[in-house]
Amino acid sequence: MSERTERSEGREGMPSRHGMTWVPGVAGSPYGVTNLPYGVFRHGEGEPRVGVRIGDFALDLAGAEAAGLVLAGGALGEPALNAFMALGRPQWTAVRQRLVELLTEPEHRAAVEPLLVPLREVEMALPFEVADYVDFYSSEHHASNVGQIFRPGQPPLLPNWKHVPIGYHGRAGTVVVSGTPVIRPTGQRASAQGPTTGASVRLDIEAEVGFVVGVPSRLGERVPVADFADHVFGVVLVNDWSARDIQAWEYQPLGPFLGKSFATSVSAWVTPLEALADAFVPAPDQDPPVQDYLRDTPHLGLDLTLSVEWNGERVTEPPFAGMYWTPAQQLAHLTVNGASLRTGDLYASGTVSGPERGQVGSFLELTWGGSEPVKFADGSERTFLEDGDTVTITATAPGPDGTTVALGEVTGMILPAR
Amino acid sequence: MSERTERSEGREGMPSRHGMTWVPGVAGSPYGVTNLPYGVFRHGEGEPRVGVRIGDFALDLAGAEAAGLVLAGGALGEPALNAFMALGRPQWTAVRQRLVELLTEPEHRAAVEPLLVPLREVEMALPFEVADYVDFYSSEHHASNVGQIFRPGQPPLLPNWKHVPIGYHGRAGTVVVSGTPVIRPTGQRASAQGPTTGASVRLDIEAEVGFVVGVPSRLGERVPVADFADHVFGVVLVNDWSARDIQAWEYQPLGPFLGKSFATSVSAWVTPLEALADAFVPAPDQDPPVQDYLRDTPHLGLDLTLSVEWNGERVTEPPFAGMYWTPAQQLAHLTVNGASLRTGDLYASGTVSGPERGQVGSFLELTWGGSEPVKFADGSERTFLEDGDTVTITATAPGPDGTTVALGEVTGMILPAR
Repeated sequence: MSERTERSEGREGMPSRHGMTWVPGVAGSPYGVTNLPYGVFRHGEGEPRVGVRIGDFALDLAGAEAAGLVLAGGALGEPALNAFMALGRPQWTAVRQRLVELLTEPEHRAAVEPLLVPLREVEMALPFEVADYVDFYSSEHHASNVGQIFRPGQPPLLPNWKHVPIGYHGRAGTVVVSGTPVIRPTGQRASAQGPTTGASVRLDIEAEVGFVVGVPSRLGERVPVADFADHVFGVVLVNDWSARDIQAWEYQPLGPFLGKSFATSVSAWVTPLEALADAFVPAPDQDPPVQDYLRDTPHLGLDLTLSVEWNGERVTEPPFAGMYWTPAQQLAHLTVNGASLRTGDLYASGTVSGPERGQVGSFLELTWGGSEPVKFADGSERTFLEDGDTVTITATAPGPDGTTVALGEVTGMILPAR
Repeated sequence: MSERTERSEGREGMPSRHGMTWVPGVAGSPYGVTNLPYGVFRHGEGEPRVGVRIGDFALDLAGAEAAGLVLAGGALGEPALNAFMALGRPQWTAVRQRLVELLTEPEHRAAVEPLLVPLREVEMALPFEVADYVDFYSSEHHASNVGQIFRPGQPPLLPNWKHVPIGYHGRAGTVVVSGTPVIRPTGQRASAQGPTTGASVRLDIEAEVGFVVGVPSRLGERVPVADFADHVFGVVLVNDWSARDIQAWEYQPLGPFLGKSFATSVSAWVTPLEALADAFVPAPDQDPPVQDYLRDTPHLGLDLTLSVEWNGERVTEPPFAGMYWTPAQQLAHLTVNGASLRTGDLYASGTVSGPERGQVGSFLELTWGGSEPVKFADGSERTFLEDGDTVTITATAPGPDGTTVALGEVTGMILPAR
């Protein structure tokens, strides 16, 4: 046993699972040793490398593995997280435990410190190669709001919504890393004179939480709800940019297509599920009862609080804990028909909206279909996104020992249509 | 100039672009030197290799490139077609011309013949790594039939159908090569007593034609209709297996998901566009006029005739030439919002249905929603697929000089649900 459990004590006097790190400036940071998200960074002219975030540093894991400080069969030397994510849960745990040792035990400082790169010197890359991208629709509040806005006077939820975790496939090739500018899409939209083609005038966000698959499954094999944590490596924040005018005209009968496929942004840091162990909380009761393959006991969601800043001003704080369908249910649904999983599959929650206006995850809802503009501190107003606008989504979760785990950020600026 | 243009003459006395091959048994074959589709094969215990089909042989192109017989920068030594497809149209043309030389000029026979592998000795693999998979819905007859079956008494086409080439993203990770058995999917379906979960009882096919992207495009860049042949490498046959009961319950409002994602089969051979140069024919007039970005002059479809065999008996012959939206229009639509293309993107036409019952591309239509069973020669009947059933889709196109170009086949047998 290492010294660290003796060195620090958590709340209520129990020995902490995590000691203090020797890395400078980390005290009080939500990127402490209870977090340790993974990403891929470039430093100067170097090739992309896998790293883990501690405070305001990236620890170069390619360098750490090359130096024999951590063992992952060479997977950390790859330019994306896929090879590491494919190793499976025991290896994820072993590497994480080793990283905590390296970052907390003073005897490792001399070897490890030269591998720390200040984040201000790095450029982040897409952390993993996206295999398939699926987007769910799992917030009852969001689905109800959208139903009321688009189908006024009709029941806000369709008959299948409380039975089927509704989802669809999105475009994997246009998933981009946080910070990538988003070019306003062009497309067809309806008008009183018939369809026209032009730049979207109802460009929106969708604040979501994405789950990244590490361990694949075979074609024809179902993944039961109980196996969620054996397949899912971690969590990213997602902004599923949406052109509402394009979407409204195209989506019947086969669903959203070009209204979504121009860009989907994900956070640069993938928070491992293990960092969120203290964030699992009971999910909302489900009535009517769900089909057997969707029954998860315990029925747990994640207590994440998202925050959406529009040009630097916080406009909404969507609560993830209230999502009707849980990530384990989504995974079981995705595979109930025998569809196989690949390493790098990404499935997102759908827009995260709580019951209050200040908790919705899209500007469609925040401005109620564009009819109630958001007023900013400087007196300006917005309904949908204008060129030059920047949206940044962040999130936090409760960590162990009273700590807070931050989930990075997903940000993007709107560039004019071409 | 090689000897071959002097050696053979085509119809009307013009010099043929293609001579006779020295490969045995190819005379009269629809896999002659005017076809030359590419695939990936395994021979014995060997690794997957790129090959080109001539008659009933695969020419080992990895071996040919290693021997210096054909030059492609090493791309033919990869275990999938992606690297070769990424080289672009001038290289595709140059390699094809060189292959015609190698297979027609007697002086190459001694070097090339040892690289011919009889097809009966090989196992075919998925010819390319699928990046994103998009499925369109471009047959007016199919869309009208489905509308009449699912929404009787309402206008069969939705208002957007003649303006927007309707499509959606499918699951790339479950695209499988022809011959892969298809396990009957399990999922939710509606019943009078509420939803139930079980094996699909309305398992269907969709006979389609798929287009494979070779040359990528950048995010934010549109691909005009005129650039179709600079990006699309070739054509595969597609069976988009569909569980109608699962699909009917899940598809509102975000489109098909698990009803399709369990398996999509593609032919093992990718027919290069150049082999189909003589198959381009005027596509149906479009009224109302389409948006500018969809206007292609000339407006050309492909004169392919599909054939669907159900347990060895031909049940329908869908004509591809009558598709309302052309592959060039589909590509322009797919990218009008700035969505980027990747090498390996696959987009399928949607079910190919002609105006007659014997020309429809799905059993849903062939049996009119399951109400009019198909009768087989042995007296048996079918509405949807039963376990053990095999479906094989083939297609032919007119080639140069009066030849016929065959597009391989896509076949699969239904295995019982697990």
